[in-house]
Amino acid sequence: MSSTPSVSSSITVRLEVEARPTAVSELTTLIETTGGIVTALDVTASEHERITVDVTCATRGDEHAATIVDGLRGLAGVTVGPVSDRTFLLHLGGKLKIESKVPIRNRDDLSMIYTPGVARVCEAIAANPDDARRLTIKRNTIAVVTDGTAVLGLGNIGPLASLPVMEGKAALFKRFADIDAFPIALDTTDVDEIVATVRAIAPVFAGINLEDISAPRCFEVERRLRDMLDIPVFHDDQHGTAIVTLAALTNALKVVGKDLRTVRIVLSGAGAAGTAVLKLLLAAGAEDVVVADIAGVVSIERPGLDPSLRWIAEHTNPRGLTGTLRAALADADVFIGVSAPDVITADDVATMADRSIVFALANPRPEVDPVDAAQHAMVVGTGRSDFANQINNVLAFPGVFRGLLDAQSHRVTDTLLLAAAQALASVIHEDELNPTYIIPSVFNPQVTTVVAAAVEAAARAGAPS
Amino acid sequence: MSSTPSVSSSITVRLEVEARPTAVSELTTLIETTGGIVTALDVTASEHERITVDVTCATRGDEHAATIVDGLRGLAGVTVGPVSDRTFLLHLGGKLKIESKVPIRNRDDLSMIYTPGVARVCEAIAANPDDARRLTIKRNTIAVVTDGTAVLGLGNIGPLASLPVMEGKAALFKRFADIDAFPIALDTTDVDEIVATVRAIAPVFAGINLEDISAPRCFEVERRLRDMLDIPVFHDDQHGTAIVTLAALTNALKVVGKDLRTVRIVLSGAGAAGTAVLKLLLAAGAEDVVVADIAGVVSIERPGLDPSLRWIAEHTNPRGLTGTLRAALADADVFIGVSAPDVITADDVATMADRSIVFALANPRPEVDPVDAAQHAMVVGTGRSDFANQINNVLAFPGVFRGLLDAQSHRVTDTLLLAAAQALASVIHEDELNPTYIIPSVFNPQVTTVVAAAVEAAARAGAPS
Repeated sequence: MSSTPSVSSSITVRLEVEARPTAVSELTTLIETTGGIVTALDVTASEHERITVDVTCATRGDEHAATIVDGLRGLAGVTVGPVSDRTFLLHLGGKLKIESKVPIRNRDDLSMIYTPGVARVCEAIAANPDDARRLTIKRNTIAVVTDGTAVLGLGNIGPLASLPVMEGKAALFKRFADIDAFPIALDTTDVDEIVATVRAIAPVFAGINLEDISAPRCFEVERRLRDMLDIPVFHDDQHGTAIVTLAALTNALKVVGKDLRTVRIVLSGAGAAGTAVLKLLLAAGAEDVVVADIAGVVSIERPGLDPSLRWIAEHTNPRGLTGTLRAALADADVFIGVSAPDVITADDVATMADRSIVFALANPRPEVDPVDAAQHAMVVGTGRSDFANQINNVLAFPGVFRGLLDAQSHRVTDTLLLAAAQALASVIHEDELNPTYIIPSVFNPQVTTVVAAAVEAAARAGAPS
Repeated sequence: MSSTPSVSSSITVRLEVEARPTAVSELTTLIETTGGIVTALDVTASEHERITVDVTCATRGDEHAATIVDGLRGLAGVTVGPVSDRTFLLHLGGKLKIESKVPIRNRDDLSMIYTPGVARVCEAIAANPDDARRLTIKRNTIAVVTDGTAVLGLGNIGPLASLPVMEGKAALFKRFADIDAFPIALDTTDVDEIVATVRAIAPVFAGINLEDISAPRCFEVERRLRDMLDIPVFHDDQHGTAIVTLAALTNALKVVGKDLRTVRIVLSGAGAAGTAVLKLLLAAGAEDVVVADIAGVVSIERPGLDPSLRWIAEHTNPRGLTGTLRAALADADVFIGVSAPDVITADDVATMADRSIVFALANPRPEVDPVDAAQHAMVVGTGRSDFANQINNVLAFPGVFRGLLDAQSHRVTDTLLLAAAQALASVIHEDELNPTYIIPSVFNPQVTTVVAAAVEAAARAGAPS
C-alpha cells in the first residue's frame, strides 16, 4: 500500500533545460515512468537557448524522490538545480505564531494594556478568580501536552522531535474550532514529574489535551491530573479515537441492520486506544466484546494479567472464549483493530458473521488490507485518507474542546464522550448512509459545531449547579 | 501626583439627554469641573426630544469615576445608562491569540502539516536536534514565566491574577521585536518546583523571560535555570532595569560632563532590581557606589548581613560610609532609587554635588518628587510616562531577546548586558543630548534594532566556536 505517491512527499526540482520542442514532455514523461505524479510545472525564466523550469511532483518517499532526481539528471540537455521538499518548506520556522489582539500604537494604548492600567484588571481577578475566564486568554486556551514517547508510529523520539506533531495539532485546533492551543513538549518521561509540571502550568489553560504519551503511563497521568485539576483533561489517543470509532460503528450498524446491544464485537489491541474504545463501547451498551492482545484473547483464566488486563477480563468476554484473535473472529459481527499491521487476513474476515463490519485502524498499515477485507465484510473503515470511511480523530477533538470551553467545563465524563459520538454520527442523515459513507469528512463544516453543541449541553447538564 | 486623570482609567458612559441647546456643554462642564478629561463624545441616536450620547473621559481611578457618574446622574434631564471601562473592554477575552501560519484547506494540506507528512519532519529533528530551530516554532518562541509573587506594585496576587501582566508583556514582545511569547503563570512558589517545571517545559522555547518573581527566590531560580538549560534565561526585573538604567546614566553623565569611573553613586534598594543595577554598574567600571536599604548604608561593619548584602558590602562603599541613606547623599554625583516612595526629599538632593543626577525609579510614586528634585539636580529620570526621561524596561527586553534569538544564544552574560546598555544609549546622538532627553522613546523604531544587533554580535562573539 506504500506504492501510491503522496503529496506529503512532494519535491520541487529546479531544472535548466535546452529550449527544444520536446523539452518539457521529456521531463514529465521521465517522472511519470519513474512512478512520480507531476502536480505543478512552472517556467520561471527563459532565454533563447534554455528555459528554467520548476517541477513539483508527488513521490512515494525519500528514496523514490532520489530515484526521480537521478533520472532527471540522466536526461540529455538537462541540468538539475536545487531540490526542495514541499513538506519541509511548509515547516520552516514552525507552524504557529502568537499575535497580540490589542493595538499598541502609542502611550495611551500602552497605559491600558500594560502599566498602569493593567493593574486594575489584575486586582479584579485577584478579587474574583473566575474573572480570569473573562479578562485573560484562559477563556479559549488549551495545552497540547506530550512527553514524546509515543509519537505517531515513530515511538519514543523525544520532546523536540515531537514538536512538529504538537504544532500541527494546535494548528488543527485553530482551523477547526478556533481554539488557541499551545504545544508543551516535556523534557521528562517520569509520571510524577509530568503530573507536577502540568499542574504547575495549568492556570493559563482552560483544558489539557494529552497527546502521544505511551501506555500505561498515560493512564496514570490522565487519572491523577483529572483528580487534581479543575479544568478538563482529555487524552486524544484514547478518547478521541473512542469517540470517532463509536460514531462510525453507530452508523455502520444502521447500514448492516444490527444492534449494538446484541452484536458480537472483537477488539484487537489493549493499549491506550483499545482500552478507551472498549470502555466507551460498554458505556454505549455493547454487551458482547472480546478483546485480544499480542498474547491472544483476554480472559479471566489467562495467567499474568496486569491490573488493566484484569479489568478488561472482568468486563468482557461473556462467552468465556480463550485462544487466538483469529479464532475469536468466527461468527463475530464487528472487528475493531487498534493494534498492529496485518494481524488478520481476508480469510479470517470470511469466518465472520454475514454483513460484518471491519474497522482496521492501525496506521499507516491496517490490521488487514481493506480492499481484501471488503470482499467479505459489508462495511470497512481505516485510519487512512486514501480509502472510504476514514476514522480520524480530527473529527472529534476540535468539537469536544470547543464544547468544553464554551461550557467552562471542569471535567470530561463518559456521558460527554457518548454525547460527542452520538452527535458525530448524527452529522450523516439516514438517507445518506451507505457502506462507503458512515462518517463525515473532516472538512464538513457541520462536524465541529454539532459535536461542540452536544458536548457543551452534556457538560452544562452534568455540572454541579 | 495621583491627581492627573489617566486614559488607563477611562470610562465610557451612555447618557440619554433632553435635546436642548446646552445639553452637551452641561455634560462636559460637569465632567471637567469634577476633574475628569473628556476624550471623546459621540451622539449615537437622536429623536425630537432626546439624544443618546456616549461620553468617554479619563479619570483618576475607580472612586473618581464613580464621583463623575454620580455628578452626571444629578444633572436635570439626564438619564445615565451603562458605564463601561475602556481598559477592561480592551482585556475582554485576553490579549493574545495563537494562529496557524500554514493553510489547511484540503486533504493535501492536512497530509503535509499533519500525518503522514509530518513524520518525516519529526524524523529529521530526531536525527539532528538542532533542526528544531529550523523546523519548529522554537526558533522564535520564548516563555514569560512568573509565579505571581511580585506583580507590579501589587505584590503576591497569585498566578491567575498575574496573567494580564504576562499577556501584556507577551504583546509587547510581539509589537516591538516580532517575538512569539507565551505566558506561563505557575501555580507554585516553591523554588525547586519552579525550576523543575521550567526545565521540563523548556524544549519548545528558545529563551526564558522570568518576570515578577519575588526576591530572594528569583536569584536562585535564575541561577539554577541558567546552569541547567541550554537556552538564555533573563530576569527582566533585574537585568532589564539594569540595562536601561546604565544606558540612561551613560547619557546623563555626558550631559553633566562627568565620568562613570570617578563619580560617587548612591543606590537606594538592595532587592532584585537594585542588586542587578549594582552589578552592571560595577561591570561598566563604576568604582564608588554606596548602597542603602531600609536599614541604612550597607557596610562591612553592619551586623546581620545575609549573603547577598555581604556580597554588596564587599564590592561597594570604598570610603567605608555608615549611617543613613540621606547622609550618604552629601556630595554624591548620582542617586539611583529602585526602592520605595518618598525615601528622600528635595533638601537631600540639595546636599548632592553640583550637576547631580537623580533617577527615582519607584513606580508609580518615585523616591522623590521629580519636580522638586529638578530644582537641585541637573538631570532627573523616573519610571513614569508623564515626566521626561522615562526609564522603562520596554526599551531593553524586546531588543535583548531579538538579539539572543537571532544569535541562537545559549546564555546571558554581563558582556551582553553591557552591550545592550551601550547600544541603547547610542540611539541618542551627541547633538540630541540634553537634560530632558537622555533616553529614547519606546516608540522610537531604532531602539529594538540597535539593541538587538549589539546583543546578537556580543552573543556570537562570546559563543563557544
